[in-house]
Amino acid sequence: MPSRNTADTRWLDAAARLAGRAVPRCHPNPGVGCILVKDRKVVGRGWTQPGGRPHAEAVALAEAGAEAKGATAYVTLEPCAHRSERGAACANSLVEAGLAAVVIGQRDPDPRTDGEGAALLREAAIEVRMHDHAASGRSLAGYLMRKREGRPFVTLKLATSLDGRIALPDGSSQWITGAAARTHVHARRARHDAIVVGGGTWRADRPRLDVRLPGLEDRSPQRVLLSRSSGPDGVRIINTPAAIASLEEVLYLYVEGGAETAASFLRQDFVDRLEIYRAPILIGNGLAALGDIGLTGLAAAHGRWTLAQTRTLGSDLFTAYDRLR
Amino acid sequence: MPSRNTADTRWLDAAARLAGRAVPRCHPNPGVGCILVKDRKVVGRGWTQPGGRPHAEAVALAEAGAEAKGATAYVTLEPCAHRSERGAACANSLVEAGLAAVVIGQRDPDPRTDGEGAALLREAAIEVRMHDHAASGRSLAGYLMRKREGRPFVTLKLATSLDGRIALPDGSSQWITGAAARTHVHARRARHDAIVVGGGTWRADRPRLDVRLPGLEDRSPQRVLLSRSSGPDGVRIINTPAAIASLEEVLYLYVEGGAETAASFLRQDFVDRLEIYRAPILIGNGLAALGDIGLTGLAAAHGRWTLAQTRTLGSDLFTAYDRLR
Repeated sequence: MPSRNTADTRWLDAAARLAGRAVPRCHPNPGVGCILVKDRKVVGRGWTQPGGRPHAEAVALAEAGAEAKGATAYVTLEPCAHRSERGAACANSLVEAGLAAVVIGQRDPDPRTDGEGAALLREAAIEVRMHDHAASGRSLAGYLMRKREGRPFVTLKLATSLDGRIALPDGSSQWITGAAARTHVHARRARHDAIVVGGGTWRADRPRLDVRLPGLEDRSPQRVLLSRSSGPDGVRIINTPAAIASLEEVLYLYVEGGAETAASFLRQDFVDRLEIYRAPILIGNGLAALGDIGLTGLAAAHGRWTLAQTRTLGSDLFTAYDRLR
Repeated sequence: MPSRNTADTRWLDAAARLAGRAVPRCHPNPGVGCILVKDRKVVGRGWTQPGGRPHAEAVALAEAGAEAKGATAYVTLEPCAHRSERGAACANSLVEAGLAAVVIGQRDPDPRTDGEGAALLREAAIEVRMHDHAASGRSLAGYLMRKREGRPFVTLKLATSLDGRIALPDGSSQWITGAAARTHVHARRARHDAIVVGGGTWRADRPRLDVRLPGLEDRSPQRVLLSRSSGPDGVRIINTPAAIASLEEVLYLYVEGGAETAASFLRQDFVDRLEIYRAPILIGNGLAALGDIGLTGLAAAHGRWTLAQTRTLGSDLFTAYDRLR
């Protein structure tokens, strides 16, 4: 028999995978996953619906119906304790449904819930097991970053040659990576609330920054320009990387370039994830992927990034690195 | 039952793996692998011995003894047809041993053998099946490059940050990669006949360029300096990349840097394999991995390299790319 902690981790892992289906259409709410288990059988599953409601717990309870009584709920984020005009508090709903236990992946830092959701459940004699569960945390990265640091979770995309170039000396960069990598970028855009490019890239390339994938055309994120001047209609302007704090409903931000914009986010240590598309080409002289990131010595460069994913996309290699904090 | 071609490929794959044990101590001879099979059982195995003799076939025949009679030999390179003062021609030895068939991975471009080895076997009524077998070709890359192009097989090593930098602006580069990657470099040195660095790297770093692995200290390759001036004792000088043709007994050459030396080999299209150690760090402003490689446009950069290997070494990522020719 696996230990209770091991079993909790496995069910929470499954709930975190469900949570992945919610982002980013759950905007502006966090993407939560919930699984109801009774007699070792799944009786209900749910994830935060588009627009943020219904919550994951409500979807799972609706699926389970009367089966919810006596079941255990595995939920990635502490159930909310605050009733809003848009629906009942999930903690109350779980109490009413007669749950036996609630296993929580991450405590909710929102002051309206923070520990209150768990307390409300315990008052109703429901067993609560609260964890600091890794996959739940990753699935809530944008929400937790917003609550804890007051800014979105930032992914920096780089598309480079093997020698780290993003363009020839004359600026030409179409194309370094292949079709599969470029399609992957569109899919990644669809997982973000907003995209940032610098003023220089905007003026040089006039990038569309949209999602050109069949069925996902309406998933194009908000476009944001890092620029000291004003921008075109429909594009939001920020003057500094720190101004991402003002993009209040943005939980996931995708930084697409160019080199100076990328470097300015890195100088402020605002980058949480690097996603690198590496084409099997060499360029030699050309434009570097990054400008000055403020590094003072090699020792300071180490211990900041860890390889999280590697895969091939056509003839390109995709690697993702997470910021160690 | 697998087809005869499939069976030939499998046994030749095994012979090519044996050949890998020979390089580079077989210097100056090619590293060949040989397997003798009789009634679907292996009765003898061999690979080229240190110094180049005995040849793989002689070792396998010695192991098989009387069992060689009626067996099939799988050998990565056409058996030699020329008697030398150092030993009998392998084709003659195979005839004398009474082989039933000889399956050859690659025809030998050496004019003393080129087709003659196979002819000699056929004259003795031995069945010969000659292939253009991929793994045999790879295991003989240095020998085939030397015979066909008159130069060694060249591997370029790069150790860079994620953004393609090999040093900070002040030149400091110790260390970008971790201990596991640096140990791997020593193991790779031990598989080469000679190492090249540029004069600038030599003067700046005074690299030892030796193999510091327990038990392999005597496997340090010949050191070669790409420089217009003279060099220290024990170091051979070449003035241009094309002068690698004059390193006559060198089949495998390892180019270690720096950026201008790497670029000069690439400009001449002399690099057959790229081996890149990628540390999980960002540098920003710093020294680029490559100088001008003579690229005229992005289209010309594509279709030249294909990903051959990916592995992690500690926290670094190792990738190898083969030149498509």
